[in-house]
Amino acid sequence: MFDYNARWARAREQMRTLGIDALVISPSQDMEYMTGCPQRYMGWTAFLVVTAHDIYFVVSAFELDMYLKTPAGQAECIGWGRGESGVDKLRALLAPCRTVAVCSQFLAGHLLTLQEALPNVLWQNGDQIMSRLRVIKDAEEIRILREAQRAAEKALYRVFDEGIRGLSEHQAAEKIMRCRLELGFNSVKPGIVASGPGSAEPHHFNSDRIIQSGDIVMVDIGGVYQDYCADITRTVAVDYVPEGFQKIYDLCLSAHMAAVRGAYPNMTCGELDSLARKVIEDGGYGSSYMHSLGHGTGLSLHELPTINQGITVPLAPGTVFTIEPGIYLPGKYGVRIEDLLVMADHGTETFNLSSKELTIVH
Amino acid sequence: MFDYNARWARAREQMRTLGIDALVISPSQDMEYMTGCPQRYMGWTAFLVVTAHDIYFVVSAFELDMYLKTPAGQAECIGWGRGESGVDKLRALLAPCRTVAVCSQFLAGHLLTLQEALPNVLWQNGDQIMSRLRVIKDAEEIRILREAQRAAEKALYRVFDEGIRGLSEHQAAEKIMRCRLELGFNSVKPGIVASGPGSAEPHHFNSDRIIQSGDIVMVDIGGVYQDYCADITRTVAVDYVPEGFQKIYDLCLSAHMAAVRGAYPNMTCGELDSLARKVIEDGGYGSSYMHSLGHGTGLSLHELPTINQGITVPLAPGTVFTIEPGIYLPGKYGVRIEDLLVMADHGTETFNLSSKELTIVH
Repeated sequence: MFDYNARWARAREQMRTLGIDALVISPSQDMEYMTGCPQRYMGWTAFLVVTAHDIYFVVSAFELDMYLKTPAGQAECIGWGRGESGVDKLRALLAPCRTVAVCSQFLAGHLLTLQEALPNVLWQNGDQIMSRLRVIKDAEEIRILREAQRAAEKALYRVFDEGIRGLSEHQAAEKIMRCRLELGFNSVKPGIVASGPGSAEPHHFNSDRIIQSGDIVMVDIGGVYQDYCADITRTVAVDYVPEGFQKIYDLCLSAHMAAVRGAYPNMTCGELDSLARKVIEDGGYGSSYMHSLGHGTGLSLHELPTINQGITVPLAPGTVFTIEPGIYLPGKYGVRIEDLLVMADHGTETFNLSSKELTIVH
Repeated sequence: MFDYNARWARAREQMRTLGIDALVISPSQDMEYMTGCPQRYMGWTAFLVVTAHDIYFVVSAFELDMYLKTPAGQAECIGWGRGESGVDKLRALLAPCRTVAVCSQFLAGHLLTLQEALPNVLWQNGDQIMSRLRVIKDAEEIRILREAQRAAEKALYRVFDEGIRGLSEHQAAEKIMRCRLELGFNSVKPGIVASGPGSAEPHHFNSDRIIQSGDIVMVDIGGVYQDYCADITRTVAVDYVPEGFQKIYDLCLSAHMAAVRGAYPNMTCGELDSLARKVIEDGGYGSSYMHSLGHGTGLSLHELPTINQGITVPLAPGTVFTIEPGIYLPGKYGVRIEDLLVMADHGTETFNLSSKELTIVH
């Protein structure tokens, strides 16, 4: 159980600094962070409103009892009945405010309604508050993220062990989904299973293509485990390594390891990105690596910080992030190697346990 | 394969009627509807912009090749490179517009940025366009939704057959997830497994409570199948029927069947809601049924129309929707019976095949 009161207090500190009277959170990972109510149950309208002295939870009356048992129940709960609307209740709460921040997942449709109803309010992006809160993980969050990543890795290698040759990309993805559920994931999506020339597409759409001997297969999977996300990519060769591939694989791995080994607390994201990028550029493949080095992961698969050129945000201790350089040769093959790590007080701790050397599967 | 050009043309008709210069769609089920690019692959920023004569797809340059192979590739594709931003590209496209509609899933954070950059644009909720398009399903959509619903039902009954007594709610939910994946679902969430007194909570949060003899268990599951959503609820008794339950079950079933049998094309949602609600009210449990009768289902689990009192929207042929009355007695038990149906030219066709009589499981 997390200390939600502490999280609310930290949000209020940010609000004070930024001159924000109310912070509004709608169903999203921000809501999960602030109330412990998992996103996967919240298909419906609900709002958490944080003000300098009060905290309100607005939800439909028929769900109220259920939320009273969650940390959201510590807020002043306001239910709306039949014929009423949650947005109306929210409007009434915000009427006295001058500056209101809404979380980035807030629906544009609701915002437009509120902007029309409350023309004197100044609206801001609440992401500046929430991302600052969520980027630094506490010990319990780090423990869950480590467990999530290891469970995803275990599922992936179990399917590699059973063999993937002869399966379609869709079928392999489905096997890895089932395996993740068996290992305790709350919810799963297929992720990316990119085989043969498809492995040269960083965000390949899975197809019915059959995985065959001599293929390079890049698998990038996540999934939600105890409400936190895993994120791992492994690239393997089926039966044998096609000509020329070992060289780009090793270059990608060198770039990956340069970032892992060179990382230190409070270096900027841009500096970390450069450690890996320089290796690939020096190897002559700079133009085949066209994405960022990594991103934060937590309740959301992709969260701040973005680890890319020009990002001056420091990687503070407690930040959990991916390192995932790639090299993609269109029409041939590609490689990406992705681990999840935490910035500790002295350097990084990698959550993954599997070898990152090029593995042959069958 | 759907006819995306026809969908764009229908969106343009609505835009003309409403005086809207540009419609902006971000990753969401609206994007899926308009481009065929599944939401589950689109974790990243991308925008579809429909204007009176042009259509643009804005996406990061490194993903561009992949999208060129999808229906989105028929649009004029605009990639942004490193150091550029998708929102900037979008701003440039929208600069000549006076009235812009954004889809309801558009991020409030992006909207606030655009509102500041383009102060003379009038912003509207694009849901008025998209929901009107999406509410009427074509024959292929209906075929997939029927298949999705039957696959979910099959998964649910397979787990009922294997027995659920002795499992925790979480464990039962996990079994039903795995079963759905085996039957071809693209992605699954745990849904609701509400046992014993938990069945009296319409949107119960699953727990570690062990399902036991004499429990009422209400299971409400969905899942994404060929990109479309299933939605089914069944309420069963474990080993025997607890005292008093048969009466409220039968009342709920009578309400359900009154709606199924009484539905006719172009009746209003409010009229359909009343058919079921009257049965429960006449039976003396009106105050124990505190939610709407149902909702549309398609690419999204919950979409328009909302079937509730006071909703004057007509149920046109081609509308796919749930009928799911419930009766909830706090501290004791609850019942909800939910099928998915399509409004046909002559009345409703139910997709479900299983009996809705009270079933005993072990």
